Amino acid sequence: MTSDQQTLMKFSDIAMYMQPSAIRRLLKVTETPDLISFGGGLPNPESFPIKEIKEIFNELIETNGKKMLQYGATEGLTSLNLAISKMLKERENIVISKDELIQTTGSQEALYMIGKILANPNDYVFSEAPTYTGTISAFKANFIKMIGINMDNDGIDTNLLEKEIRNKKNAKLIYVIPNFQNPTGITMSLDRRKHLLEIASEYSIPIVEDDPYGALRYSGKKVPSIKSMDKEGLVIYLGTFSKILAPGFRLGYVAANKEVIEKLNLAKQAVDLASSTISQYIAEAYLSKGYLDRQLPKIIELYRHKRDLMLESMDKYFPKGVEWTRPEGGMFLWVTKKGANTDALFPKALEKKVAYVVGSAFYPDGDNHESMRLNFTYSGDNEIVEGIKRLAEVIS
Amino acid sequence: MTSDQQTLMKFSDIAMYMQPSAIRRLLKVTETPDLISFGGGLPNPESFPIKEIKEIFNELIETNGKKMLQYGATEGLTSLNLAISKMLKERENIVISKDELIQTTGSQEALYMIGKILANPNDYVFSEAPTYTGTISAFKANFIKMIGINMDNDGIDTNLLEKEIRNKKNAKLIYVIPNFQNPTGITMSLDRRKHLLEIASEYSIPIVEDDPYGALRYSGKKVPSIKSMDKEGLVIYLGTFSKILAPGFRLGYVAANKEVIEKLNLAKQAVDLASSTISQYIAEAYLSKGYLDRQLPKIIELYRHKRDLMLESMDKYFPKGVEWTRPEGGMFLWVTKKGANTDALFPKALEKKVAYVVGSAFYPDGDNHESMRLNFTYSGDNEIVEGIKRLAEVIS
Repeated sequence: MTSDQQTLMKFSDIAMYMQPSAIRRLLKVTETPDLISFGGGLPNPESFPIKEIKEIFNELIETNGKKMLQYGATEGLTSLNLAISKMLKERENIVISKDELIQTTGSQEALYMIGKILANPNDYVFSEAPTYTGTISAFKANFIKMIGINMDNDGIDTNLLEKEIRNKKNAKLIYVIPNFQNPTGITMSLDRRKHLLEIASEYSIPIVEDDPYGALRYSGKKVPSIKSMDKEGLVIYLGTFSKILAPGFRLGYVAANKEVIEKLNLAKQAVDLASSTISQYIAEAYLSKGYLDRQLPKIIELYRHKRDLMLESMDKYFPKGVEWTRPEGGMFLWVTKKGANTDALFPKALEKKVAYVVGSAFYPDGDNHESMRLNFTYSGDNEIVEGIKRLAEVIS
Repeated sequence: MTSDQQTLMKFSDIAMYMQPSAIRRLLKVTETPDLISFGGGLPNPESFPIKEIKEIFNELIETNGKKMLQYGATEGLTSLNLAISKMLKERENIVISKDELIQTTGSQEALYMIGKILANPNDYVFSEAPTYTGTISAFKANFIKMIGINMDNDGIDTNLLEKEIRNKKNAKLIYVIPNFQNPTGITMSLDRRKHLLEIASEYSIPIVEDDPYGALRYSGKKVPSIKSMDKEGLVIYLGTFSKILAPGFRLGYVAANKEVIEKLNLAKQAVDLASSTISQYIAEAYLSKGYLDRQLPKIIELYRHKRDLMLESMDKYFPKGVEWTRPEGGMFLWVTKKGANTDALFPKALEKKVAYVVGSAFYPDGDNHESMRLNFTYSGDNEIVEGIKRLAEVIS
């Protein structure tokens, strides 16, 4: 807006401070025909259990239609919280009662509300650098300051983290994605997870363990979740149905101690009252009928193949001097070329009809331009090979 | 919590400030068997078009399943925004393009985000007194101060409003529910609506026109919506599918000038990214197939009967000295007895197995105890008669 234009509305300080997410801006640019996009964070629609969802919906609408279409409780459907409690015990060895759970409108709402209830404006939250862009948006919208801590192949540098926390008076939260991190694909080692818990305990700072991809492991050995080792109730665990059922339901959940759940409940009453009852009924049946157990191996097989295909193509086509991660699960790869500027390369990539997300989008301060994030779950097999070829030309 | 108990977490100032909604607290108390509750704000499940929803879902999941289950745009499905734009033109004479609309997770999210983008902490918002409790929660959660303006049978006292606005430096929003207001059932007169627009224009303060019940008119003549008379783009209009389709979808929308929609889009990216794609696809088909036009007369007939039955029962059983509103639509009645204390009466009502919402819950300052809100849409016919009899005994 130029200075001689007058806005009709007087917006709040926060409204003037918020910026569109770089990813969302890029996605608008990338609605070009023939473009191969590794940019989005979308699950592959082939992974959606459409037949099962149809069966569940038709059964429920007959037997439970009136409840399924009515308002629901802010904390979510009791039967769904019970089913999640059972799933977390079986899959993650996380022992949590139904009263230590709350449903959210996707994990995004969980991230936003956690920032709101646990940090004041100008307080500090620590995260991996790079980290998920949606988390940066959620915390920024609460005027929270984020400090990114460097990672290596074992995850966040916990020694550096501890030093930074010691230096900051208003350190309020540690935010991490330990499994197949977004954007790097790196999995945090068991030692680092334990060290994180020690730091949380010593400085009385809660850990937010965001685990959207944990169930999507294609190789290697499972590492215990931080929450499963949490004896003091300091870990706030975030799960979602977006990647193991479908994102269209907008259904995530938080597992945390009752104090935190109670405050999240208050925040949710103000923010959106409750999440979709229909989504919750369907998710509950998906778990209790054992359909998740049946679907997960299919999703894993689909994505493992795509990951392998992308890695093979990169081995084959990428020039020397380019490095990339080899994730054991999840949805993303992280490509780095020392001295490159992926922001500057982006228009050239679009010319060659291939897209990625610029690495700078994943840094709270936006100040890192040598990397790019590639999604390997969404594109078709031929697109993966062809897209990597095109990208190789762009990088060369 | 007693002073010797230590909380594990250090919560933010806003987390310590938020209070559970009085209604939600009451609802927990009222889960007693045999209790007749006029307390909730629930639509009657008989009003849900279950057959149509089932038909739409089955059609869509076959033809459009992969899109319907995928992430959607933050502003909502383009086809739904187009359908709403058409509906608003036809039903409300509101002329608005698809780019002046955004989908929200119920109207609650709209209220919360509007507070966030248009007022700073400690700014003032003006509303009718009494007003909707969810609005009080939404604004309080943004640290906004609410000032309630008295109403009469023509709605908010606009002269008093103007005086108050003139007295306050940081007056940022006027919030009203002009049709069948929650909780009073009062409809704002055309003159008052015009006066509101003049005030908004003179003081450059936007009006939030919350219209969840506008389509539910059982008698009397429609009054034009404020937005339909808004030449300067100062009115932010809120609609919802909760009362004309079903609340389980958690689907509301905002119609406003593009500046406001753009800021709401940014806020929504941080708060929950997008609303349920499934809900949006179903709502779009519900509108474009003409099912709303077919369903609305049925809902109106159902609710008109219930309103009339409650009013007749009150005429018959309520003692002298009790006054109540006679709404031309919506879901609520407002009962007042001078000198009564409905907070103190509440336990006695529960003893007689009947429940209402205490009037004090609807005042931003909580300071008014002579009234109660009754919902007439949810209960069965026999319950309405019997519940009013019981309430008559309590009040006497």
